[in-house]
Amino acid sequence: MIHGVLLDLEGVLYAGGYPLPGAREALLSLRAAGIPIRFVTNSTRVTRAAIVNRLARIGLDVPIQHLFTPAVAARQYLIERRLVPHLLVHPDLRGEFADLLGAGPPSAVLLGDAGPEFSYAALNQCFRLLLDGLPLLSMGANRYFREGEQLTLDIGPFMAALEYAAELEAVVLGKPAAAFFQAAVNSLNLPAHDVVMVGDDAEMDICGALSAGLRGVLVRSGKYRHGDERRVEPLGGRVFDDLDAVVDYIL
Amino acid sequence: MIHGVLLDLEGVLYAGGYPLPGAREALLSLRAAGIPIRFVTNSTRVTRAAIVNRLARIGLDVPIQHLFTPAVAARQYLIERRLVPHLLVHPDLRGEFADLLGAGPPSAVLLGDAGPEFSYAALNQCFRLLLDGLPLLSMGANRYFREGEQLTLDIGPFMAALEYAAELEAVVLGKPAAAFFQAAVNSLNLPAHDVVMVGDDAEMDICGALSAGLRGVLVRSGKYRHGDERRVEPLGGRVFDDLDAVVDYIL
Repeated sequence: MIHGVLLDLEGVLYAGGYPLPGAREALLSLRAAGIPIRFVTNSTRVTRAAIVNRLARIGLDVPIQHLFTPAVAARQYLIERRLVPHLLVHPDLRGEFADLLGAGPPSAVLLGDAGPEFSYAALNQCFRLLLDGLPLLSMGANRYFREGEQLTLDIGPFMAALEYAAELEAVVLGKPAAAFFQAAVNSLNLPAHDVVMVGDDAEMDICGALSAGLRGVLVRSGKYRHGDERRVEPLGGRVFDDLDAVVDYIL
Repeated sequence: MIHGVLLDLEGVLYAGGYPLPGAREALLSLRAAGIPIRFVTNSTRVTRAAIVNRLARIGLDVPIQHLFTPAVAARQYLIERRLVPHLLVHPDLRGEFADLLGAGPPSAVLLGDAGPEFSYAALNQCFRLLLDGLPLLSMGANRYFREGEQLTLDIGPFMAALEYAAELEAVVLGKPAAAFFQAAVNSLNLPAHDVVMVGDDAEMDICGALSAGLRGVLVRSGKYRHGDERRVEPLGGRVFDDLDAVVDYIL
C-alpha cells in the first residue's frame, strides 16, 4: 500500500509554464484521499519562494514547507560544516546563500544549474579552487532538461567537467542522493517503502528513489525519451503516461 | 637502446613563449647523434603552420612534416569516413577544416581546445547534435594546461561534459590515443619499443605512449605537479627534471 507520494515538478505537474493535463485534478484527488504529498525538485534556477509563487499562479497549490530543493539541502550542508561557498549558481539563486558569504575565504565550491553563467572563465575559477583542495558540492547531477521543444544541458555535465578536470567526485546534494529523498520521507513520518516517487527522469527521480528504498514510477510526460523505461524496469519501477494515470493506480 | 624520440612541445621544449633552459641544446645534441625526432602536441588552438612559425621565432627548428597534431589526425579521420564536421574549435583552427564544411549537414561533432568559445550556447548546440546520433570526435582529452602561473581547463573537461550529457564515449584523435603515437612512430620506420616519448603530462604523454608500446619519460618542467610520477612509475616510465637531463640519459 502507498501512504505517501513524492512528486517531481517539471514534467510531472507542469511543463512550459502550464500545468500538465489532469495535474491539478490529480493533486486534488490525492488530497481528498488523505494521502500526504511532498514535492522534490532539482530546480536550482530560482528560489523556493519563487517556485511556489509560479506554481500558485497556474493553480498548483504547493505549501513552501512541503517543497524540497537542493538549495535547502545545500544550505544545511554548508551550515553544519561551517563552510563558506564559492558560488557558481544562477543569479536568481544567489540570494539564498548571501548570509553564508564573506565569513572568510571560500572553503567549498557550490554548483547550481547556472545556465548561461556556465562560462569558461567561471568554470576555470571553480577548477582552480578545487585544485587548492576545496570540495565540490553539486545541487543535482541531471544530464539535461526539456526547454520548449528541445533538450538543454543541466548541471550534471558541468559537474562532470569539473570532476574530470580536478580528478575528484562531487558531493551531490539533490536527487539522486539518498539523503535528499530521505529528508522528504522523514517529514511524512512514513517508512520509505510506503512512499512512491513520481518523476520524468528515469535516472535522477526513479533509480534514485529506488536506491533510497522508496517505490518509484516514471511518467512519460516531460523529458521522457523513447526507451527511458529500460533504465527503470530492472529495478522494479513502473511506467505510466502521466500523473493522472499514476493517481488512478494509487487510489 | 633508443633509436628515435617523440617530443611534446609545451612544457618540454618551451613554456610561456620562451624555450626552456637547455631545450635548444638538447635538440642539437639529439640531431648530432643521428637520433631522429618527431614532435607530437595536443595543441589545437592554432594551425600546424602557426606552431612551426612560433617555434622558429624562438630558435626551435621543427620541420612541419615532423609535427603531429590532432587537427591533422582529425582531418584524416573525417576525410576517410566522408564526415562533415560541426566545429567547436578555437577560431584560429577553423581554417584547417574549411574545405570539409558545406558538403551537407554535419555528420560528426568535432571538439578542439576552444578556450573561451566553450560557452553554454556552443555546448548545447553540440549536445543536441549528439542526441541526433552524431559521433563525438575530440582532439585530445587533456584535463588542464599551464598558463603562466596558473592551470587552465583544457579540452578534456568539455569532452567529459558532452559524454556525460549524451551518454556516449568520444573518439579521441590526439594523445593518449595509441593511433596518434603510432602515426608518429611509423614515420620513423622504427619499432615502437625503440622510441621514447618525452612529455610533461603523465597521463596523456607517458601513460598513453606506454600503452601504445613506446617507452616514456616524464619531465618535471611544464605542468608537472607534485606526485605526478606516481601515475607513471607502475607502468615503467622514468622521470627527469627536464629535456636536457633526458638527452644526457639517452646519449
